Amino acid sequence: MLLQLHHCFRSVLTVRTVQSLNKRYYSSEMAKRVAVVLSGCGVYDGSEIHEASAILVHLSRGGASVQMFAPNIDQMHVVNHLKGEPSQEKRNVLVESARLARGNIQDLSKLCAKDHDAVIFPGGFGAAKNLCTWAVQGKDCVVNEEVKATLQAFHSEGKPIGLCCISPVLAAKVFPGCEVTVGIEKDDKYPDTADTAAAINQLGCKHVSTSVAQSHVDQKNKLVTTCAFMCNAPIHEVFDGIGSMVQGVLKLA
Amino acid sequence: MLLQLHHCFRSVLTVRTVQSLNKRYYSSEMAKRVAVVLSGCGVYDGSEIHEASAILVHLSRGGASVQMFAPNIDQMHVVNHLKGEPSQEKRNVLVESARLARGNIQDLSKLCAKDHDAVIFPGGFGAAKNLCTWAVQGKDCVVNEEVKATLQAFHSEGKPIGLCCISPVLAAKVFPGCEVTVGIEKDDKYPDTADTAAAINQLGCKHVSTSVAQSHVDQKNKLVTTCAFMCNAPIHEVFDGIGSMVQGVLKLA
Repeated sequence: MLLQLHHCFRSVLTVRTVQSLNKRYYSSEMAKRVAVVLSGCGVYDGSEIHEASAILVHLSRGGASVQMFAPNIDQMHVVNHLKGEPSQEKRNVLVESARLARGNIQDLSKLCAKDHDAVIFPGGFGAAKNLCTWAVQGKDCVVNEEVKATLQAFHSEGKPIGLCCISPVLAAKVFPGCEVTVGIEKDDKYPDTADTAAAINQLGCKHVSTSVAQSHVDQKNKLVTTCAFMCNAPIHEVFDGIGSMVQGVLKLA
Repeated sequence: MLLQLHHCFRSVLTVRTVQSLNKRYYSSEMAKRVAVVLSGCGVYDGSEIHEASAILVHLSRGGASVQMFAPNIDQMHVVNHLKGEPSQEKRNVLVESARLARGNIQDLSKLCAKDHDAVIFPGGFGAAKNLCTWAVQGKDCVVNEEVKATLQAFHSEGKPIGLCCISPVLAAKVFPGCEVTVGIEKDDKYPDTADTAAAINQLGCKHVSTSVAQSHVDQKNKLVTTCAFMCNAPIHEVFDGIGSMVQGVLKLA
């Protein structure tokens, strides 16, 4: 009985959210319209949940209007996060990303750069498993065609792109010569940064060591990156570093 | 190849997190030890993701050490968050909650109130579907035995309990006469508050209208509640209200 209210509740929420976003957008020409591209829901096979949430909190505080997107494809695999092992299940990236978006999300194929002032990609293994094949092939990875087209469209229109954790490798693969950070090299708090940075440099890009609380800006390419959970930091430091990245993106938008 | 690094990465992260928590705990007698009880991962069938994440960010900033728990039971059902409809899948509450906990979570049956200074329950429909049957039975709901035992143990030891969104109904069901908030009654921004408040009052408890940015403290029962996504507010206001709740819990702990 009450259970059935759930769908009404959901519709009300979705409609009100859209109305609220429209209202905010149309009521102020200054509101930045930001697309956020998700890759599932869970650090080991999708978007890192706390990174995605932090991005939304900081965008909201910055007065931006947000639309979320994800590719409508199968996840590379499903990881049982309790055991840390792949399971036999199949899950869809868009359907699982909808958990983070509270249902308010669209197929990435519908994303048009002209409708947005900036785009942000959270990290998590989903960025390296579902948005490209970095987790398996490293610098020889293939980037999902819709993801590549999205990055190129924002870049060619001179609109900023924000990335965190492992997702800066997407930029390194698509924009040769760009500058990004995935943390501080040769520091125990950043156990995977050195290898990832080496691969980024081998792609002809420049890795810039940057602490978890900060972000790096590539002014030429309008890329803003922060290492987030590439650092073994308390979650509030990751949250603050993502705040720095989001503020950098909004400043450039 | 790189893919296989994933398990090492996970183990390193888990071990380091525990070491870091231990270090922080043992290095300061003032660090509060807080248990967080999850109910899955996704607003319509589990914990509301952004509420859970906000709780962790605020606890981390407050210097608390955190252990996460969830019942090892099947979810009431699985909701496809893109369509807003139940699917035919089966998922386990503990396994899905592990996504929010980045793998660092334990079976709720292992939670011992003596090892913690406080406990916090995020909201989301999971609190009303998996931790009790409120979504189906309202005030006549049954509370999961482990959840009930957890609430009673912290309460009888005089340790604070934090709850947000719909999860205050757990307290209303277990502690007759207590005071909680689930938002502001008769305000369009809080569409489900009036009905939920009426049911809480019918249980012999007192609903106290409180805005999304604030929390209500029941000093006698050491309950701290905030309405979170019961309000159609921008996500940063929900984040701030949860901050008020977490600070209230840490103050009482």
